Amino acid sequence: MTHDLSAQLHVIGQHARHAARQGARASTAAKNRALTFAAAALRRDQSTLLEANARDVTQARLHGQDDAFIDRLTLTTHSIDAMAEGLEQIARLPDPVGTLTGLQPRPSGIQVGKMRVPLGVVAIIYESRPNVTADAAALCLKSGNACILRGGSEALHSNQAIARALHEGLQHAQLPADLVQVLPMTDRQAVDILVTLTQWIDVIVPRGGKGLIERVSGLARVPVLKHLHGVCHTYVDDSADIPLALRVCDNAKTQRYGTCNTMETLLVHQAIAPSLLPALAEIYLAKGVELRGDESTCALIPQAIAAQETDWSTEYLAPILSIRVVSHLDEALDHIAHYGSQHTDAILTNNWENAQRFLREVDSSSVMVNTSTRFADGFEYGLGAEIGISTDKLHARGPVGLEGLTSEKYVVLGHGEVRGG
Amino acid sequence: MTHDLSAQLHVIGQHARHAARQGARASTAAKNRALTFAAAALRRDQSTLLEANARDVTQARLHGQDDAFIDRLTLTTHSIDAMAEGLEQIARLPDPVGTLTGLQPRPSGIQVGKMRVPLGVVAIIYESRPNVTADAAALCLKSGNACILRGGSEALHSNQAIARALHEGLQHAQLPADLVQVLPMTDRQAVDILVTLTQWIDVIVPRGGKGLIERVSGLARVPVLKHLHGVCHTYVDDSADIPLALRVCDNAKTQRYGTCNTMETLLVHQAIAPSLLPALAEIYLAKGVELRGDESTCALIPQAIAAQETDWSTEYLAPILSIRVVSHLDEALDHIAHYGSQHTDAILTNNWENAQRFLREVDSSSVMVNTSTRFADGFEYGLGAEIGISTDKLHARGPVGLEGLTSEKYVVLGHGEVRGG
Repeated sequence: MTHDLSAQLHVIGQHARHAARQGARASTAAKNRALTFAAAALRRDQSTLLEANARDVTQARLHGQDDAFIDRLTLTTHSIDAMAEGLEQIARLPDPVGTLTGLQPRPSGIQVGKMRVPLGVVAIIYESRPNVTADAAALCLKSGNACILRGGSEALHSNQAIARALHEGLQHAQLPADLVQVLPMTDRQAVDILVTLTQWIDVIVPRGGKGLIERVSGLARVPVLKHLHGVCHTYVDDSADIPLALRVCDNAKTQRYGTCNTMETLLVHQAIAPSLLPALAEIYLAKGVELRGDESTCALIPQAIAAQETDWSTEYLAPILSIRVVSHLDEALDHIAHYGSQHTDAILTNNWENAQRFLREVDSSSVMVNTSTRFADGFEYGLGAEIGISTDKLHARGPVGLEGLTSEKYVVLGHGEVRGG
Repeated sequence: MTHDLSAQLHVIGQHARHAARQGARASTAAKNRALTFAAAALRRDQSTLLEANARDVTQARLHGQDDAFIDRLTLTTHSIDAMAEGLEQIARLPDPVGTLTGLQPRPSGIQVGKMRVPLGVVAIIYESRPNVTADAAALCLKSGNACILRGGSEALHSNQAIARALHEGLQHAQLPADLVQVLPMTDRQAVDILVTLTQWIDVIVPRGGKGLIERVSGLARVPVLKHLHGVCHTYVDDSADIPLALRVCDNAKTQRYGTCNTMETLLVHQAIAPSLLPALAEIYLAKGVELRGDESTCALIPQAIAAQETDWSTEYLAPILSIRVVSHLDEALDHIAHYGSQHTDAILTNNWENAQRFLREVDSSSVMVNTSTRFADGFEYGLGAEIGISTDKLHARGPVGLEGLTSEKYVVLGHGEVRGG
């Protein structure tokens, strides 16, 4: 059984590898044609998609999944249209593949430059959100990669219906169907095997909760592009503008609670804390945000409760905020280095030197001055779309878009030069 | 015992992580001062270095190591001077850290750009070549990283003597000694533990034979920057210039036999084979190169022996060359995709379209037109020096220099913007 499963996955991997060579040399026009045709097919097949999705939703309810789960799983005419629109947007983005940069002559006579090329085969492992199927496939296709999609088992019918539209697009553009493969098997073991297929897969992108990402990273032999969690900080320096700080700190925490770029810990310079924290607390408390502070914070905000050690490293994903008063910038930097998740951290300041130090010294995938951590997002950064966010150090950091799905190889142009010495 | 070893390595990792923060914010001037002072210390302490090295060499001989091993291990006044010169060269290279590029305004009002930053802590695992100690430490230091060096146990005294010179340089520049740590323990198990310390180490660079690299990759939980082997191809297209092809093919195979960028397989278009192969065989045979060919090759070169299937995927690192005649470009591309190692491959051609297809479609870290694969090298590419060559797809491909020891984080500059929607 395991042996069969492994053999099946090897075949899928081999097909992906084969298709990836064709994806890498596909023209921009062909890739865009596939995407726009697939978008049209999604709109045309709306009712079939809704039917397939209804089967998944019924099953999920029978299995006792909660409302949040059902909500993420459910497709509507609106969400199908948004998926189609997403494909069209990706078709409009510039194609990164084949760009040749930095071609320079060397003393030997050769010219050396770099060409941007697809990674090859990308496997995306995600939960029961059918829209990820369309998004991820489109980003991989546009960047010249083959993809293997493993969505949550509860979304299988929806994902297969979406894949049919994508395959129609590929066929229409005379590109191989194996550029987009949705894994048909729903057992967990399939993922455990998939992430070890270094021969066929170049990168794994897990998208979902911490549990999924930890499991995938723990077993993977293929490199993983991921972010585990987001414990994002805002540090309010003593020279910060108070109205600006009130507006930005409010937004960073309360604009959405469940996202990875939401602020979870607020650090405040002791000199500004008395004039900032009471007014800020009023805003938070009016919105029902629970405040957990260190001693100095609790002295300034009577409604705050005492923070525990674990609070400083917790990603609440909820209307809860931990607050600490620090005596200088270095204490804030130390706090972030110790408790942070290298996701996104911001300083609010009017002090040039402190802004520069924060930008340089905070080792996170996004570092910000005078704005909300909520901006850490592929669309907001101008990437057009993102396949995920990486808090790893190698390859791409922060929101990963089309460029993050490519890398650069060296190109050497000669005229018969040979190496001496 | 294992537990003690693990605890010791955790302490080393923690010290490296701590030092890395200081390395990341060190000024270019301080880093260069450390390097040039260390170079002076190496020259000044020549006799101490030679003594320490003599102890290692004596031990290695007692352990029955062969001449090639002893040769790599042995330091001379000349090689010490070359090491010092290497440090000075790295001091003269531009500092990649802190470069801010692509800062652009977004519709929301924020400006988004990317800043180049060190990876953090780099562990280098290598064999008994003491010069790697100086090289690797210098590249890591200049790129703002802390490094943990684990050289072959037979070179321990030499490595520690070199480390003393590096530490003098660090002290002179008021940088922490823990930026360069040479592992004092010589047991293999130390490596096995080291490569799993994801908390303290950001990237592992194994340098050495295939055995070492396979073992490290197999056990590592920390990302690995590596190349496993180099089965490099030269494809001679039908339109190639014959004198150019003779010169380049000779150089690619015979300039040095034991390097990873040496050509191991020659592919020749059937239309040019009769006019090229006999003349080329003469050159190779005069230099004692054994030729292993497919049927068509053997028909054209009487001295060639029949190649076995395994020849096509073998990195000989020796005066042996496999040769295959192909009927068109696509057959060459398929051969390289199937048997290649994604290291370095070259086409010799006067056909523009074929050159373009080769450059685009061969998925190797270096692709070349009309020149020798032997040029795949950090110095030849203008990187100044290399910490290694990567044939992986993520992060850096090809020769990895200072830039490959860094990555880019997002920098977001605002004026109080908040996210809407």
